[in-house]
Amino acid sequence: MSRRTFLSRTAAVTAAGSLVAAPAIVSAQPAVRWRLASSFPKSLDTIFGAAEVISKRVAALTGGRFQISVHAAGEIVPGLQVLDAVQAGNVEMAHTALYYFFGKDPAWAVGAAIPFGLNARQHAAWWHQMGGKEVFNEFSSRAAGVTCFLAGNTGAQMGGWFRKEINTVEDLKGLKFRVGGFAGQVLTKLGVVPQQIAGGDIYPSLEKGTIDAAEWIGPHDDEKLGFQKVAKFYYYPGWWEGGLGVHAIANDKALAALPADYRAALEAACEEANAFMLARYDATNPQAIKRLVGAGAVLKPFPKPVMDACFKATQEVYAETREKSPEFKKLHDHYFGVQRDLITWFRVTENTFDDYMASIRR
Amino acid sequence: MSRRTFLSRTAAVTAAGSLVAAPAIVSAQPAVRWRLASSFPKSLDTIFGAAEVISKRVAALTGGRFQISVHAAGEIVPGLQVLDAVQAGNVEMAHTALYYFFGKDPAWAVGAAIPFGLNARQHAAWWHQMGGKEVFNEFSSRAAGVTCFLAGNTGAQMGGWFRKEINTVEDLKGLKFRVGGFAGQVLTKLGVVPQQIAGGDIYPSLEKGTIDAAEWIGPHDDEKLGFQKVAKFYYYPGWWEGGLGVHAIANDKALAALPADYRAALEAACEEANAFMLARYDATNPQAIKRLVGAGAVLKPFPKPVMDACFKATQEVYAETREKSPEFKKLHDHYFGVQRDLITWFRVTENTFDDYMASIRR
Repeated sequence: MSRRTFLSRTAAVTAAGSLVAAPAIVSAQPAVRWRLASSFPKSLDTIFGAAEVISKRVAALTGGRFQISVHAAGEIVPGLQVLDAVQAGNVEMAHTALYYFFGKDPAWAVGAAIPFGLNARQHAAWWHQMGGKEVFNEFSSRAAGVTCFLAGNTGAQMGGWFRKEINTVEDLKGLKFRVGGFAGQVLTKLGVVPQQIAGGDIYPSLEKGTIDAAEWIGPHDDEKLGFQKVAKFYYYPGWWEGGLGVHAIANDKALAALPADYRAALEAACEEANAFMLARYDATNPQAIKRLVGAGAVLKPFPKPVMDACFKATQEVYAETREKSPEFKKLHDHYFGVQRDLITWFRVTENTFDDYMASIRR
Repeated sequence: MSRRTFLSRTAAVTAAGSLVAAPAIVSAQPAVRWRLASSFPKSLDTIFGAAEVISKRVAALTGGRFQISVHAAGEIVPGLQVLDAVQAGNVEMAHTALYYFFGKDPAWAVGAAIPFGLNARQHAAWWHQMGGKEVFNEFSSRAAGVTCFLAGNTGAQMGGWFRKEINTVEDLKGLKFRVGGFAGQVLTKLGVVPQQIAGGDIYPSLEKGTIDAAEWIGPHDDEKLGFQKVAKFYYYPGWWEGGLGVHAIANDKALAALPADYRAALEAACEEANAFMLARYDATNPQAIKRLVGAGAVLKPFPKPVMDACFKATQEVYAETREKSPEFKKLHDHYFGVQRDLITWFRVTENTFDDYMASIRR
């Protein structure tokens, strides 16, 4: 029942019966229950935890009338099938990294992270204030009947764990690297053999040498899996996700049926989840990386020639992808249309401040 | 009326009269009206606008039952007196930069920005996930009966507009610089003569040469005042505000009287305002700085010896301030206790990614 309908009915009954003194304002909203399918396991407490932030805040904002139950990957559907589940209406919403749906259309990845793209803060500026969410949701609504809300960012991820050092571009040839999506396509051009392995299987694969390297997220999450024991070279940066935007996605029909204040609650809660995830990663990663280094991890930046080769290969993959997908081309133009100006501005006062602070806080 | 009270009364009346079929869930919350005093003029559309974001979102989240009217600096109280007004209960809340209350106790500045402190993202991590808001609000509640909610960040600000170049530390001697608070104290040690001048008077003072330099905010706001016409050297970074946190502050008694869902609405709305302000500055500054440079502004980094001298002088001011204010000492310890680890982590993958992106997007 819409709020307007209820108020009208109440007014009618009151006028007829005159028994109930109307309080100053009455609102009656339907009890709404949604299910949220996360693409993440509970063990990823921060990225999974952001969905719990959404659920708790929505309940608090609506006096418990709008309840969203949060389900880890696999509880209702596997983590990579949450978009299908939302599109079909099997669940009303999901919490996911949109690049998981790269296979449906590479355009999906633009909302999340694409190689040599925007960092977390630039991504938020693009999404909220430079037309990003409008152009992206025009696509997502049309393609799958879903609307996406920014609801998390991991910050720049690490480049992964390697059993051997990567000193030259040649060292990438034949490398069996657990990496997917765009990064996998880019690295294939440089001779890497991308591997698809679920999180829990990475450690034994590295230990046995079935694979040579694996990327996961960053220190806070990687530490739990103990990679430093079997692949001690911990490379950075993860140029394929310089700021992974994580989204809540909602079925458009379910969304349209929400009262306006529930919709507002959902939007506000997603914004809070967004801030929560980034702040929590930023708060936990510093201690985790110290422990990892103490436990034997060796931090290594990718050499510049390797970065340059990856950047060049990325441009080739982008050119090919733009040919294949007009949706990708449109979003790619929009996304990269803001990047140069953002970077140029960040170089002025923001990065100069950061660089100076780093020089005095060694 | 509390929600519980109303529900009980409704139940009683309904049981007696049995005329009104109770809907599944009814909530009746009091109509609440608050006044918010901003420290900022409407012309600062982004920093002032964040308060409007709070007001609109709170209304949307509560079906219009909780209304917060937003008043620009001077409408109810002058911009620098909003803390007094909230403390006295003349207004329920304010939106302000807490370093304006440096004169009451320098501890207030720690919540906003202090020289060579945290950048915007580090500040959010400290505030939300590293105990910052708890330790700060313990102080603010005790000192002034107010609770502070992070509700904006400008990002790193610029260092200001100078009529002459600053090439050496000597060039600071005798410089009449419109700058206040901690930065003014620090620069005094280097011979600067800090000036207190309201925003609207800066331009004529620079034009006449009554002052030699002035800091304001960043390109988006500075552009409106036309400084490049009278003081073309635009220095960076503003080391005294590497990420100015802006806060909503609420009177503790007014806050305690709010129903839980209104309190939740206020918290969520502040978080949204926080994201709004930073994203909007990030979205608008890039174009503004291009226009400023086109109009004759000359971008200049402060020379390293000048930065080093300012850093050294800052440490002296901090030592003196810690002696004077135990509140400052406690907050200062907490704030700087997280900085080194945050910076060390950011240097790994985040800044390496940014640096590489800057190298290829010149």
